[in-house]
Formats: sequence, structure tokens, C-alpha cells
Amino acid sequence: MLTELHLPIHSQKMTNFAPDKKPLPTAGLRLTAQEGFSKTTKPKAPVSNNILDSIGSPADLRKLPVEQLPQLCEEIRQYIIANCAHNPGHFASSMGAVEIAVALHYTMQTPDDRIVWDVGHQAYAHKILTGRKDNFEKLRSLDGPSGFPSPLESPYDTFAAGHASNSISAALGMAIADSQTPGREERKTVAVIGDASISGGLAFEGLNNASMERNNLLIVLNDNDMSIDPNVGALHRYLSGINTSEAYNRWRARLYTAMRKRGLISDNGRGMVMRFNNAIKSLLTGRQNIFEGLNIRYFGPFDGHDVKRLVKVINEIKDMSGPRLLHLRTVKGKGFPVAEQNPAAWHAPGRFDPATGEKIKSEKPTKEKWQDVFGKKLVELASKDDRVVGITAGMLSGTSVGLLQKSFPDRTFDVGISEGHAVTFAGGLATAGKRPYVAIYSAFLQRAYDNIINDVAICGLPVTFCIDRAGLVGEDGVTHHGLFDLCYLKCIPGMTVAAPMDARSLRALLDFSLGFDKPLAIRYPRGIAEEGDAEVEIIPGKSRRISEGKEGGVAVLTLGAIGAETDSLIKKLESEGIKAAHYDMIWLKPLDSSAIAEVARRYKAVLTIEDGSLTGGFGDEAEMALRAAGFTGKVEKLGVPDKWINHGTPEELRHICGFDGPAIEAALKRLHNDLNLK
Amino acid sequence: MLTELHLPIHSQKMTNFAPDKKPLPTAGLRLTAQEGFSKTTKPKAPVSNNILDSIGSPADLRKLPVEQLPQLCEEIRQYIIANCAHNPGHFASSMGAVEIAVALHYTMQTPDDRIVWDVGHQAYAHKILTGRKDNFEKLRSLDGPSGFPSPLESPYDTFAAGHASNSISAALGMAIADSQTPGREERKTVAVIGDASISGGLAFEGLNNASMERNNLLIVLNDNDMSIDPNVGALHRYLSGINTSEAYNRWRARLYTAMRKRGLISDNGRGMVMRFNNAIKSLLTGRQNIFEGLNIRYFGPFDGHDVKRLVKVINEIKDMSGPRLLHLRTVKGKGFPVAEQNPAAWHAPGRFDPATGEKIKSEKPTKEKWQDVFGKKLVELASKDDRVVGITAGMLSGTSVGLLQKSFPDRTFDVGISEGHAVTFAGGLATAGKRPYVAIYSAFLQRAYDNIINDVAICGLPVTFCIDRAGLVGEDGVTHHGLFDLCYLKCIPGMTVAAPMDARSLRALLDFSLGFDKPLAIRYPRGIAEEGDAEVEIIPGKSRRISEGKEGGVAVLTLGAIGAETDSLIKKLESEGIKAAHYDMIWLKPLDSSAIAEVARRYKAVLTIEDGSLTGGFGDEAEMALRAAGFTGKVEKLGVPDKWINHGTPEELRHICGFDGPAIEAALKRLHNDLNLK
Repeated sequence: MLTELHLPIHSQKMTNFAPDKKPLPTAGLRLTAQEGFSKTTKPKAPVSNNILDSIGSPADLRKLPVEQLPQLCEEIRQYIIANCAHNPGHFASSMGAVEIAVALHYTMQTPDDRIVWDVGHQAYAHKILTGRKDNFEKLRSLDGPSGFPSPLESPYDTFAAGHASNSISAALGMAIADSQTPGREERKTVAVIGDASISGGLAFEGLNNASMERNNLLIVLNDNDMSIDPNVGALHRYLSGINTSEAYNRWRARLYTAMRKRGLISDNGRGMVMRFNNAIKSLLTGRQNIFEGLNIRYFGPFDGHDVKRLVKVINEIKDMSGPRLLHLRTVKGKGFPVAEQNPAAWHAPGRFDPATGEKIKSEKPTKEKWQDVFGKKLVELASKDDRVVGITAGMLSGTSVGLLQKSFPDRTFDVGISEGHAVTFAGGLATAGKRPYVAIYSAFLQRAYDNIINDVAICGLPVTFCIDRAGLVGEDGVTHHGLFDLCYLKCIPGMTVAAPMDARSLRALLDFSLGFDKPLAIRYPRGIAEEGDAEVEIIPGKSRRISEGKEGGVAVLTLGAIGAETDSLIKKLESEGIKAAHYDMIWLKPLDSSAIAEVARRYKAVLTIEDGSLTGGFGDEAEMALRAAGFTGKVEKLGVPDKWINHGTPEELRHICGFDGPAIEAALKRLHNDLNLK
Repeated sequence: MLTELHLPIHSQKMTNFAPDKKPLPTAGLRLTAQEGFSKTTKPKAPVSNNILDSIGSPADLRKLPVEQLPQLCEEIRQYIIANCAHNPGHFASSMGAVEIAVALHYTMQTPDDRIVWDVGHQAYAHKILTGRKDNFEKLRSLDGPSGFPSPLESPYDTFAAGHASNSISAALGMAIADSQTPGREERKTVAVIGDASISGGLAFEGLNNASMERNNLLIVLNDNDMSIDPNVGALHRYLSGINTSEAYNRWRARLYTAMRKRGLISDNGRGMVMRFNNAIKSLLTGRQNIFEGLNIRYFGPFDGHDVKRLVKVINEIKDMSGPRLLHLRTVKGKGFPVAEQNPAAWHAPGRFDPATGEKIKSEKPTKEKWQDVFGKKLVELASKDDRVVGITAGMLSGTSVGLLQKSFPDRTFDVGISEGHAVTFAGGLATAGKRPYVAIYSAFLQRAYDNIINDVAICGLPVTFCIDRAGLVGEDGVTHHGLFDLCYLKCIPGMTVAAPMDARSLRALLDFSLGFDKPLAIRYPRGIAEEGDAEVEIIPGKSRRISEGKEGGVAVLTLGAIGAETDSLIKKLESEGIKAAHYDMIWLKPLDSSAIAEVARRYKAVLTIEDGSLTGGFGDEAEMALRAAGFTGKVEKLGVPDKWINHGTPEELRHICGFDGPAIEAALKRLHNDLNLK
């Protein structure tokens, strides 16, 4: 039984998008029953993998009778639990999308039909069903599958899906391409997008264009009421409010009867009835269907965990033409009670006991995470200056802006997955006298590039960008490394760019930022910060020399956290008789020209080290400045080379890139020996 | 008389957003009359500027009786016509927004109250009213006002507004900041946004966040049915369809009466009535109010050219709290009949006869524009390869993708102001076997940076980026120059970046692209392309040497169109006995390493020239490669320095930046003489 909200189509190009001739099972006035969404699930006894073990590919899945699908879903859940318990991953989202994955592969002829997963961390069931069950235990590790869909890994992974909100646009491209390719017109394309992702501007642009050209795109909205943190925004409230309440059902029947009797309504075709449904819904709930306003047929909401029902629903709508949206209500963490009760904490929970759900505490580190050094300092700044406000784009916990929210909820803005808006909004706040701190991961800040340029930098507004996860992030892999920020920020006039070596430096930079009236970017990595053993003086363009090395020898220039490890290495090498100067440059822009001049004058070889793209990064700037200062010696640059770096531990990836400890040590020795041989 | 669609507010934070206590003039069942939108205006006799001349600032405006406002609007229109006729500008948009500017400044206490113009080229009347009337004739020229609002120019220009869709986010930041600043809570903020701009994802993100925090933001939707080209997208169709038709009015009254009588409706307060309105509207039109779905109160549509009515409406809603949207219907080019009839052609019409509207043809250039070289070649590629499709983001005419549309409408996708979607959509098309050509201006492609990285480059999809308006664009100024693309693209692994020197090279690159199975970026500037006098061989990373110069002398390395002018200069200098080698590098990435090695070996000084940011651009890459090849001579780099460059003619701006003809000649002579003095 379907609730279809069908819109008249106005575009010329859309004339062939008329509703399907085949009558739907739900004509007339049958009421859509409200779906029963179980709020939590009781723990279940472990199950064997009898069915799952028989599934080598979706073709095997499609041979099963529909009655076996609930059991299969249960087995997949247990498999995810068993694996994620010891190999941490994006647990709760994937637990919530098991039935969606099963139902889609069951009803579609994948991989010929295409499923485009938005933010692929909901797609573990999909990975397990599509040939990656056996190495699923190696998920996110160096030689295992990616944590996100990757077309380079499997033909079932149709599009790279690490950043939210891209599925509709990408799937629309595929669907339109098929509609124009002879013999491929019947091929199906499905975008599966979460309720947090759909609030991103890119998803809206996709929706806004979905009905412009002939296509049969099916959008499945996986609505679990959650972003990584609880979801925000008007669209979220809107989605939460879509329902077919009892009041609605009562009123609707009475109204319709009354109006028919008085000749106020003539039921000329199903379209009119469906519009009547919707109008009445709007009357009673004060809510409107946004998707319908965008010419996308809406079906739902349905219980996204009733897999047999899902199969029925998808089979009923899959052959329709024109863009459609299927709204499914799901529970993040479904099937694992503790995760259902606290889904944010179980987004990526780390290791846990699969039987009890008790999290396995790794040893409490004695040092703080970079994000917490930032978050705590932000609270301190806010306490002493009323102008300070904090902004995050759906990452309250990941950026530790959540710490500010606890103390100053009114001065904390979580704008959801809307990085562009976050930055422009900060520009507006700064215009009106506030001091905004925008905390966004380096890779996601790429989405706000134009906003940084136009809405902050051109007018020189005092916005501080706190760029978290800068550098290699490790297990999240290719889409999540923050490698380009130095390159894309340094060319912006009036932008000041810093990277602290240790926690003390980050705090000092943040103290400094409060009195700095221009755009400022501070980048720091994922993970643990060294505390640092000395206070640092913060003056833009002023570095600090940590080791003096020896005249005519090697100088090492580092930017950011990598400097702390380099410092230890240099101290260690000193005991072996190898002395090197070490400059913690602190500032990429402005670069410390007097330190550069000193290096050019005093040393004969230079090693630069950065956790970021070597192309257009810090090393390039340093080399250019050295040459301009007349340096003619060798400059060797360590960092991330010009190729895509996949997933693995940060240490493994730094090894691959050639700037882990041993690589730094080797480079230092090589430069040192070269000089001494001359 | 207002049509207010008021939503119940569900967020805790929104409790103080209750509808205003003050009863509105339009309670109950009074029907909203459909506004009469005059389609065209008859030409009028010239008018004197009696009223306009008395307006030194909005404070003067506010002293006028409301009856004089229509006459003032007429005088402003004549002033815009008289000025734009001889000093070309963004004519049609500004003609359509005269009454909006007058009514807002009349009702608001600007500049304390703030107006944020989205895409400021609708804001000429605003500029004239706010102290820039007298130098309005110098608009967009080197020593005149900017064509867009600029906070650095006037306190009435509250935010930089060159790129579309940012006004809601920026104004929301200002409004929320005020709501949290003691004594400033009553300050008003208005965002004025066009119907094309509001379809951008950034605007949606702003709308989605508009009701999340306490604020009194007023959004004025200036709906003229047009982007620069006719507007596209579902939201556009939706806006066009909002109306209060006669059928609606008839049905509505009958339904309401019937339902009241039968006790089906109890009119418990205005909110219910308004929701009833909306529900019935939805029933009859099959359309829903999207803004209401986003918890933004909606008023409209009203005739945006009835200035006295506008003043009344704005006065009625301006003191309400909570976010509101006022929907105004306007006519692009209003008041100048030929512009009303063909608004796209009058977006930026060039010089014209103010009496007749006849355009003053500048001498027909014998050479083609870059954009047309591209557009024509794209048609040719599409003719010979079915896979070729063209994509533009609201710029069919500006990018000449319109030429493809004429021949292959089904294979041409104008996605509206949605650059991010354009690129991800192209990724989807490429995944499904198409060969997408995405034509976007360099400055606007900044909005799709993350999409280029994630949705095209990571999987190495064969999308060709045709980057128009790369380099200094001239009169449009600081927000429109395309200066950063080389820097932000070169760090992306697997990206190939080229810039043709002349039309032949661009055609050859496009021919090449069809057989190239990876992401490719081709950048070219605004303006006229030299045809070029030789075919060029296109192999990635292979440059061509145009002049050999002399061993031990100067070598000039150019990237892109600037090479053609440099070539002429070098040939001219040869007659003065100054010989220089000249390499048209063609490729930034991969850079021609064998040419670099040759230069390092043969020449003693190098001059690099590019039309783009010197920081992180081509010159930096070339210098680094030269040093790596052992070059120790002088490297001088010409291009755009690390500061914001405003408006002026391209020639003036290149002079300021130091790479116009005389500057290039001077640099060449200087390097030449330095070598000969040694």
C-alpha cells in the first residue's frame, strides 16, 4: 500500500513522465497505516550464518525466497557486530541500513542496475553481499577493503562516496546517461541518501535538477534522525514531522465524504485523490511535501527494517519512470540495543564486546587529542570574550566544538552538513562584530573554498578557521585525508596560515587569534598532540629555532605536528654525532623570511617535512624562498607525493609516503653524509 | 493585504517566534487578489531628476512623501539608462530591482539596518541612493565604484556580493549576531535574492538553517523568472507556479463555508485559517509551499514594481520576529521595453542608444572569442561522437555551451547556479560512459572544488573542465577574476592541466580530449583569441619552442593566452637586437621536464609569465623544476601578485599587476642587459 504524492508535470521535457499505466495497489481512499517503528530491539541469541554463507554475490541473494530475508538480515547484523567488535568501523549507520541493502540487491539486477550510496559508511551490508564478506575483517586496513564504496574496488561500488550529499547528482548523471543510450533505457539507478546528507546544498542542487531531464532515478531516503551527531536544520524537523497520524486519518475520511456529497470534489482520477490526500495532510499537520514541490514523486514513510515490505514496495515502484523518492524510517544502530539507545556514541565506537556491548577501553592516553586542545581553549576564549562564537558543520563531537556547546549553547552553531553555509554564515557573524571560530575537517573545508575566498577573505573578515584532521587521517582513507589545504589556502590574498607543532603552540595561536583582525587558518591533525616543553611566541611570520645544528650542515624545516617527532629524532641523532638545525616554521603564510635568510646563509642542505601534499605545499614555498635568498644547496622535501593515498594506519601511510620516522632519519643521514663526503 | 502562510514552530528555541500580536490587515477569508504584472512598459518621455537630485543619502529619501516614490523610481530608471547606455553594465537586473531598493531604504533605517544584496548586479539603484550617484558614470572603471556591493566602498554595502546565493547565510549571521548583542536586538537585516540565486545549494543551506536560531531575517525574493539566461530547475518551475488563481479563489470560499457548516473546521485563530489557505492552494494547484516546509513564513507573491504597495507590505512585516520570505514578482529590464522583451540579451548589453534601445555595435572583431572557439569545437566533437555532452551552470551564453544546445538540446545540460552539482553530475555521466565537457568560469569553479577532487579525480573519470574567464576579467572585478585555478588544481593527483596560447591550440586540445580517458582541465581567458599560425602537437607534458633565442641568453616560458602577446613582443625586440627564447609550455601538469632541462642547460636567465596568481601558480612550478634540473640563474616571474585586484579594463589591471606589454618588454630587456653586463 503506497502513499503516492503525484505532481502534475509542467516541463515540456517531462511529458513522458506520466504516472505508470499499471494501476497501483493503493488506489482510492484506503488509508495508509502508520508504520510501527520499534524504538529498540531486544538482544537476540547469536545466530549461525547458514544463509549468509550461501551468498557469494547478489545473484545468489536473488535466488532466496523472500521469507528468508529477515533471517539473512539478522545474520548480516551479527556478522557486522562480530567484525566491528574487534576491527573498529562505522558501526551504527551500517546496522541501520541492512534491510535497505538486502532489499535493493534483491529487487535490482546489480551490478547492472546501480546503487549509489551516499556517505558510504552505511554500506557495510552492501559490501558483505557483494563479494567482500571474506575479507570484511580487514575493512579499513592497509590490505583490506575501503570503509567507503570505491569503484576501484568493486563493480558494485558505483561511485566514490566519502563526502556527504553527492549521491543524487551522481546517480542522476548515470540515469540520464542511460536514458540516452540505446538499449540501456531500462537500466535502473538508485541513490541511497541519509537525512543528514540530504540537507547539504549539493543534495538540494541534485533534487532541484532531478526532474529536468528524462530519467528513472529512485532516491531512497534513509531517515534515521541522526547525522553523526543528532541532525539539525529545518529539513530535519520537516522530515521528522511527516507522518500519517490518527487525527489525519479520521479527518481525512470525514472531509472527503462531506466534500464529495456536496459536489465540491469530483474524483477524476487517482492524481486528484493523491493531491487531496496531500492537501489535507498539509491542512492538519501544517506541513508541506517539499519533494513534491520539486516535482519528485514521494512515497512513504515506511519502516526501513521491514525487509519483506521493502521488497514489495520497491518492486511496485521500481519500474515507474521519472524521479521518485522513497522515504524509509530507520534506527541507527538497529539490532544492537546499546547502539540504538545512544547512536552518536556508536557512530564509530571503537572496539567492543559483541555480547554485552561494553566498549573495550584502550589505555587512556596521558596526552590530549588535538581536537580537545582546541575545544577546551575555545571554551576559555569564549569565557573571556563575549564576541567568541563556535561553528561546526555536523561535527560537534569530531571537532570538539561540543565542549563549547556545553558551556555556551547560544554561541555554538552546528549548521549540519553545510560547510559552505558555515563559512558564509561566519562571515556574516564577523561583519556584525562577532569572532567566529569555524572548525571543519580539512577534507570537508574543500566544500567551502569559494566561501572562504569571497565571503571572508576579500573583505578581510576576522574569521578563524580551525582546520582539524589536516594531513593523513589513516583508516578513513582517500576521501578523508586533509592534504590540500596548504595549497588551496596559500594563494588567497590576505589569508594567514599557521600550523602548530604541539598543544602549547595551538593554545598560543588561539590566544593570538582573538586579537588578530584578519582571516586566520590554523591546521592540526587527527590524533594525539604532544604537549610541548616551551612556550612559543606568536607573531605572524616568526618561526622558532629548536636546534641550532652546525654551521655548514643540514637544516630541517618543519611545519606543524610532524615537527614534534622530528625534534625527538634530531635529539636522538645528536647522540650519534649527527647534528642538524631544526626550525619549527609555525607559519606557512607569511613564511619567516628572516629565518629563511639565516638558513640560506648558515647551512648547506635543507630538509623540509610536512604532513600534506608536496605539490604546492610548504616545502615548495620554503624552497622558493630559499632560492630567492640565494641558497644553492640541496633541498629535499618530505610529505605526501602526488598520488592518491588509500587507507591504513597513519603510520603505515606515512611509511608509504616516505615521511615516517625511519624515512626522516634516513633522509637526514643521507643529506648529512653527502655534505661530509664533499 | 497579505497572504501569510504561517507554520507552527516545533523547535524549543523558536518559542519566541509566535506570530505577531498586532492583527494583520488581512485576517479571515479575504481573498488575495492576483497581482497584475504588466508584461511590458511603453517607452516614456525623458524625465528630469528633480526628486533624485535631492537625495544625497537614504535619510533624504525617507523624508519624501510616499506619493513621490513612483516618480523617484522613474527618475532612477532614467538615470540608469542614461549611464549604462554609454558605460556598459549589468542593466536588466538592476532595472528590475529599482522599486525594491527604494522601498527597502525608505522603510529601513539604513545603514544601521542592513540590506545584503545577493549577486550585487541588481543593486544599481541601491548604489545611486547611497552616495554613489555622482560617480555612477564611472561604475566598473578603475577609479569608479565597483559593479557589485563592496563593504570596502560604502557602509551601505554590507557584504561582498559577486558570487550568487550567499546572501541568506551572510544575512543570517548578521541577524543572529544582533539578536545576541545587547541593545541591537531590534536592528533589521534583509537579504535580497533572485530566483536564480536561490536555487544554488548555498542558498538552500541558508534557508535550512534560517529558523534554527532566534533572528528576524527578512528574505526578499526578487523573482524575475530569469537567471542570466532563462532560469531552470524544479524550484524555478515551483516559483512560477505559485499564484492565487481565480479557480483557487472560487473553490476556496465554497470549501471553507461547507466545511465550517458541517463542523469539520473550527477556526481557532488565524494560524489555522492560514494553514487552510495553504492546504486548499495545494489541493487546487498540486503545489506546496517549500518555504513553509522549511519553517520560514511566506508572504506573496506581490508586484515588485508597485512601490507604494511594497512600502506598505514591508512596513507591515518588518517588525515581526522570526525568518520571513517576501516573494516579489519583477520584470527583468523593467522600464526599457526592448530589455523587457529580451532580458537575456540585456543582462549586460554593452553600449546602446538610450532613446531607441538600439545597441551600438562595436566594430565586429575579425577574430573569435575564446568561448566561441570552445563552443563551436564542442558542437563538432558532439557531431562525431555520441558520447559527448555539455554542461553549464546557468551560463549557456557566457560559456557558449548555448551553441551545443542549438544542435544537440538533449545532450546539453544547463543545471542553473549549481556548480557543485554540475561537476558531480558530470562524474555520474562519465561513470555511465558519456564524455562530459563542463564549462564553468574559473572563479565559479571554486564552488565545485570538492566535487572535482572527490567526484571526478579520485576515480580518474574522463571529465573535461573547460575553464572560461581564467585570469583577470576586467570590469567585473575582484570577485570574478579567475586567478586561483592553477594553484587549486595542480595539487590534485591525476589531474591534467593545460592552457592554450591560441585558438588553434584550444581546438587541438579539445580534439585530444576526446581520446584522453582521465580528468582534464583546459583554462582560457575572457576575450578574443589569436588564431595562431601553426598547428600544435598535443601530447600531455610536451611544450613547443616558438623562438630559439640565443644560447646563454634569456628564455621566456609562458602558459596560456599571454604567450601570443609575448610572441609578438619577442619578435619586435629581435629587430632591436634582443633575442630571447620562447617556450609555449601548454601544460602546467604535467610540466614539460625535457623542455625545462633544455632551458636549464642552454639559457642563463628565465622569465615566466602567466595570467593568474603568482603564489602557487605556473611560475612557481617552472622555477622548482628548473632548480631541480640544476638551473642556478635568475628566474623572474610575472603574473598576478598576492593581493586583491579590483575592477578596471583588463589592460589597466595587467599594468597594475606588472605583466602588460610594456612590463613584459621591460623585464625582458632587464634580464637581457643583466646577462650582458656580467
